[in-house]
Amino acid sequence: MNKKLAVLALGGNALLRSNQRGTIEEQEQASEDTMRNLIYLLREGYELIITHGNGPQVGNIMMQNDAGQIMYDLPAMPLDVCVADSQGSIAYIIERQLRNVLRDAGIQKDVMSIITEVMVDINDPAFKNPTKAIGKIYPKVEADKLAAEKGWIFKKSPKVDDGWRRVVASPTPLDIFNKEVIGSIARGGTIVIAAGGGGIPVYIDEKNHVRPAEAVIDKDLASALLASQIGADEFYILTDVPYVFIDFKQPTERKVEFLNKKDTDQYLADGKFGEGDMAPKIKACLSFIEKGGRKSVITEATKLEDKKYGTKITMEYED
Amino acid sequence: MNKKLAVLALGGNALLRSNQRGTIEEQEQASEDTMRNLIYLLREGYELIITHGNGPQVGNIMMQNDAGQIMYDLPAMPLDVCVADSQGSIAYIIERQLRNVLRDAGIQKDVMSIITEVMVDINDPAFKNPTKAIGKIYPKVEADKLAAEKGWIFKKSPKVDDGWRRVVASPTPLDIFNKEVIGSIARGGTIVIAAGGGGIPVYIDEKNHVRPAEAVIDKDLASALLASQIGADEFYILTDVPYVFIDFKQPTERKVEFLNKKDTDQYLADGKFGEGDMAPKIKACLSFIEKGGRKSVITEATKLEDKKYGTKITMEYED
Repeated sequence: MNKKLAVLALGGNALLRSNQRGTIEEQEQASEDTMRNLIYLLREGYELIITHGNGPQVGNIMMQNDAGQIMYDLPAMPLDVCVADSQGSIAYIIERQLRNVLRDAGIQKDVMSIITEVMVDINDPAFKNPTKAIGKIYPKVEADKLAAEKGWIFKKSPKVDDGWRRVVASPTPLDIFNKEVIGSIARGGTIVIAAGGGGIPVYIDEKNHVRPAEAVIDKDLASALLASQIGADEFYILTDVPYVFIDFKQPTERKVEFLNKKDTDQYLADGKFGEGDMAPKIKACLSFIEKGGRKSVITEATKLEDKKYGTKITMEYED
Repeated sequence: MNKKLAVLALGGNALLRSNQRGTIEEQEQASEDTMRNLIYLLREGYELIITHGNGPQVGNIMMQNDAGQIMYDLPAMPLDVCVADSQGSIAYIIERQLRNVLRDAGIQKDVMSIITEVMVDINDPAFKNPTKAIGKIYPKVEADKLAAEKGWIFKKSPKVDDGWRRVVASPTPLDIFNKEVIGSIARGGTIVIAAGGGGIPVYIDEKNHVRPAEAVIDKDLASALLASQIGADEFYILTDVPYVFIDFKQPTERKVEFLNKKDTDQYLADGKFGEGDMAPKIKACLSFIEKGGRKSVITEATKLEDKKYGTKITMEYED
């Protein structure tokens, strides 16, 4: 069997439902449900690399760090270390659930989780315009104090009166550390979990040292980069909708099942995908096929088994 | 060059000094200092696997979980997830410092950190007699409540009046997940960081599922098992003393530079090594050489470069 290699980026409801607090029982159940839907791809002969978001989890970890400092005078860890924490625990939860799903299905495969640093450019223009809100909501007096102490940048939260949140940059991922070994382990038959939360962002400083960048990387962009760098055949973004929609939630809404590069570029230029949410996913898919990937798919995890679902993005429409 | 494979278990001061709170600056500095001492082994032609403890870090993570629950009503994660968190962040800190030490030394090697589950037997007698104190110190009224709610077991803390701490079992590690791939990556030239904190303890339940065991595994025993399972040539335990001492801190104290199996068994039987601290390390070293490992070494990280330091444990004394 000529094995195909696919990278699957898990987001949205795949690891935690949007209305959940994030208890271990909730995380385990959501992961298990999602993992069951990967069996189809394995039976089809795919080798898999799984990447995943970390938004709710790393948010909780940062709040726990804050609370530990206030209640017990424990040293709070910086953002890069909190992301590393979240990579460890989310990957472990996925790994153990996947092991059990594989055991239930009688599939003999191993699963391996890798802590992943991702290179960014400290001169990326994103650092001039931080946009990603992270961590706790502070009153202005505290936010000003932290801004002065740590150089953090705050923006007004739309949700709370006198609520300010730290914002960090979301720079473009340039290189996935350990990509060759990740690709080689996956091709060897072990399912790899990597690049959690878009990776821990790092850059090379003037001393040629690897330094943490106080930033977060879009997990779909990092996942697409990993898929390109290792020459994966297919790239999947698993999210909360079964298809990509044009004019989502407007009277003119319609689903699209197939997209080629030319039409996708035009729809993007016309703002047809929804800027905040779907457009970045489409861009991640495009970046994969532009660098030689055969096919990108955006769908719900629960729809993987049914080939009629999902939006397939390819360079040219297939006959 | 005929490459040798060594497993190094980092404990004691290697990642954090005993008088430190665990700030990121302290952890980075201690890791960097320790990593500089590994350059010697790399120049000697060793391939390396690094394992590490997690005591102070996972303690802080558990306290942060507790504080987050009290202050912000965040769901507290169970022990296995806290260990996974600590594997993620400690391995990341070591990995990044090691990358920089390698860059300074002009050594082209990659470093890869792996989240590691370790199999135990849920019928291990250790579960009948939990001994490892973890997490926060509670007053009796709270300890009793948690014991009733969660089935946790508490023992009186010797340090605090009305102070009770949860105790968990420390079962024998039986199998390191992903050992083959870990060995193969290391032999391929990438330095691997694995089995942090002795690994996340799991067992196989009656449904053939991998389940978390509420326990902690001795990191030296888990590291020795990994070293045996992958056929490593040498096993190092890096700790706070340059040698093993007989009758440590007694008038009859003397250092030992070489130990064979027969003498070591005798010293152990006679309680010559200090039960709480050094004896378990010696037993881990013995388990490695009994299963075919060539040499175990116990020393300080800072003494690696100077071959006169360190206690070498071998099956027979070498001529």
